[in-house]
Amino acid sequence: MKYRLILMLWVVFAIEINAQNDESVFIKEIFDNALTNQYAYNNLEHLCKFAPGRLVGSENSLLAVEYMKQYFENLDVDSVYLQEFTTPVWKCDSSSVFILSSADKPIMLHCDALGPSPSSQSEGITAEVIEVKSLAELEKLGREVVSGKIVFFNRKWDHTFVRTFEGYGNAVDQRSRGPEKAAEYGAVAVIIRSVTNSMDHFPHTGNTHFTDKKIPAVAIGTLDADLLSEHLIKDSKAKVRVFVDAEEIPEAKTYNLIAEFKGKEKPEEIIVIGSHIDTWFNTQGAHDDGAGVVMTSDVLRIFKELEIENKRTIRVVIYMDEELYQSGGKAYAKYVKGAGEKHYLALESDGGAFTPSMFTVDGSVENVRGIARFLEYLEPYGIDKIKAGWGGVDIGPLKEMKVPLMSYGTDSQRYFDLHHSANDTFDKINLRELQLGSGCITSIIYLIDKYGIE
Amino acid sequence: MKYRLILMLWVVFAIEINAQNDESVFIKEIFDNALTNQYAYNNLEHLCKFAPGRLVGSENSLLAVEYMKQYFENLDVDSVYLQEFTTPVWKCDSSSVFILSSADKPIMLHCDALGPSPSSQSEGITAEVIEVKSLAELEKLGREVVSGKIVFFNRKWDHTFVRTFEGYGNAVDQRSRGPEKAAEYGAVAVIIRSVTNSMDHFPHTGNTHFTDKKIPAVAIGTLDADLLSEHLIKDSKAKVRVFVDAEEIPEAKTYNLIAEFKGKEKPEEIIVIGSHIDTWFNTQGAHDDGAGVVMTSDVLRIFKELEIENKRTIRVVIYMDEELYQSGGKAYAKYVKGAGEKHYLALESDGGAFTPSMFTVDGSVENVRGIARFLEYLEPYGIDKIKAGWGGVDIGPLKEMKVPLMSYGTDSQRYFDLHHSANDTFDKINLRELQLGSGCITSIIYLIDKYGIE
Repeated sequence: MKYRLILMLWVVFAIEINAQNDESVFIKEIFDNALTNQYAYNNLEHLCKFAPGRLVGSENSLLAVEYMKQYFENLDVDSVYLQEFTTPVWKCDSSSVFILSSADKPIMLHCDALGPSPSSQSEGITAEVIEVKSLAELEKLGREVVSGKIVFFNRKWDHTFVRTFEGYGNAVDQRSRGPEKAAEYGAVAVIIRSVTNSMDHFPHTGNTHFTDKKIPAVAIGTLDADLLSEHLIKDSKAKVRVFVDAEEIPEAKTYNLIAEFKGKEKPEEIIVIGSHIDTWFNTQGAHDDGAGVVMTSDVLRIFKELEIENKRTIRVVIYMDEELYQSGGKAYAKYVKGAGEKHYLALESDGGAFTPSMFTVDGSVENVRGIARFLEYLEPYGIDKIKAGWGGVDIGPLKEMKVPLMSYGTDSQRYFDLHHSANDTFDKINLRELQLGSGCITSIIYLIDKYGIE
Repeated sequence: MKYRLILMLWVVFAIEINAQNDESVFIKEIFDNALTNQYAYNNLEHLCKFAPGRLVGSENSLLAVEYMKQYFENLDVDSVYLQEFTTPVWKCDSSSVFILSSADKPIMLHCDALGPSPSSQSEGITAEVIEVKSLAELEKLGREVVSGKIVFFNRKWDHTFVRTFEGYGNAVDQRSRGPEKAAEYGAVAVIIRSVTNSMDHFPHTGNTHFTDKKIPAVAIGTLDADLLSEHLIKDSKAKVRVFVDAEEIPEAKTYNLIAEFKGKEKPEEIIVIGSHIDTWFNTQGAHDDGAGVVMTSDVLRIFKELEIENKRTIRVVIYMDEELYQSGGKAYAKYVKGAGEKHYLALESDGGAFTPSMFTVDGSVENVRGIARFLEYLEPYGIDKIKAGWGGVDIGPLKEMKVPLMSYGTDSQRYFDLHHSANDTFDKINLRELQLGSGCITSIIYLIDKYGIE
């Protein structure tokens, strides 16, 4: 009896070992495919060059969706369809900032409007400038000082944060909450220092939150911010003119794009992977988040080419509007709830396509452990960690349905050089790094589908 | 007695713990300094833009040494001096490759000579072409087929190697040994497909080894190689003309550059860190290896600014001529041997300045373990591994004196896009990645000096 048990254990152990070896071999097949195919790269080039500035509501955002729809149709997946929903949209036709010096000619600063900034009057808003480093400093100055002025948020990026996402988190409140706060104190417009670790003339736009009163708000390049600040030291009464021509439309139709392979054993359990196709108006959106779109879309191609028999349904969702109102993710979650669909897991890729670094899991401890056991398969390809952490903006609304969320993370050092700026172009994409991303996401989805996450 | 022992152990343990906490804080100071200073970046810009093509024997190689010498003099280190030695030198003034088609006009291919290729006659060498994929294939063809022909080595890079240095190792024999082998079989010239994972028109040059007979040898871009190969399918008798204007001079004077801080406790024990200042004639040499020069040179600046009291002598050696004859490393080792100096450790940085990834150690198991215990201090800054592995070309000759060698390694995905080509330019350097490199090298040298490696 004892010998029999030992023998049984030995057999179980041997099967397990063999299974693992086989999986390593198969994971290598996935990466061999990813590293020798340029579909994702070519798709990204198309999105960047033929549909830049894919902000929700723009014609290019729809061209981009149509392009990816055709990609999935050519791939002959089980189903491809658009998910229609309505959302406010906003567009910005132009913006400008000039220092109106008494001594010199007007000095133009490189700027882009924050979304959804309102228009200024057509001649722009001309006023004196109050430079502050934080929301707290603004509060201290109070309404009396701020009222009627243009507020200039100029807190610098702290370069000593090694993880750039922490550097971003440390600086972004100026952009996300600064304009609202300034409006509350009677400011007439807001200029922010771009939230980037780069020193250059690229304005980095982004979302800002307004409740009641909206005032024109723009980002200027970091070198422009230094120039303005120096100017204000010499001439604290210098006036600045801020001009924005933008329009918010309360309701418009737009679409998420959905493509899937039905599960062969448990089609009702859906693994959803995705990313957002929209970008800011000022950029090709190569890393943010064209790269996510083409890498997650590449998963279905690799599944098909390697004839993977997926147990569960593997669904790619290309979300519209992560940047402005996050309406695509909300619309998708609403649909899931309404249809009573069961989502087994949701993965998002929205951190660029640099060298792979990690997967983070926003779920139960069991989920984290269940996924972290796949680490050994991915370490040879650059994934160092699978750990508890961030999920994603688009998949965030699925959390209330207790869907485990996860995010694909890459080397972050270069990300905020480009983020939300005209500098985020296709030439910043490295073919191999993108291909490794396709391989990593495909592999983890394959393993999760096959072995489960608990 | 027993209680006393426990108490003693507890005290030792507590001191150790506190020391470690303090060190984490100090390592952060090192990185804070590195991440907020642009000295290394500015030095690299200078080397790239004012002294590109720093091949040994060139005027720019001496200008580059002079520039770095002034940097160390301004830094007021304990000593700065040039180490003179003689070496053969080689220069290439021009090269060209044309397909001489009967039907079309001559088709120009993008090429650079390999070093040290001899000159062709002034009208070039015109002959039929034999395309092979490997040295073994050449051998099989034998002298009868090869004699009088131009051999075209066209084995493609295998993209399925995840670590690009392995991909390079798998392809580079065509360049390093191909010309010699072809000459042995009577070939009149050699063309190689550039050893790179990129598909473009940049020729990637590099070292080739000749024993007796030398024949002109050039690298062509990967797209050019595809074009030539396609042409040979259509017209296997097509002739190609290879022209090289180059010259080898048997003996010339050149210099290594040495700068150091004397050790305060054990000045006779020398920790040497370095990299090579020479580049191929066709490139700025930003990643290979201008980056290594400025990061290792930054160590002395950071030691000085943070007032680190180094126990052992910290010596930076900027080697001349890693690329062509490896004469600088050999000259340095010869000097060390002659002077009877004791080298405690030698570190080289010659893998570019991408995001930090690892240190490798070429020494005893005790050395590897002794250095690997510092991993925990460096993990927050991107160093995932400290393990047995490669040392470096320039420090290689120190090995026979039993000096433990080590190498700084960075994310390798982009390295061979640039390596030995005109594409290795300053704009490919990311400020933060370079700064993290300064921080990593400074930190490991600080820890090794303070705690030893055994």
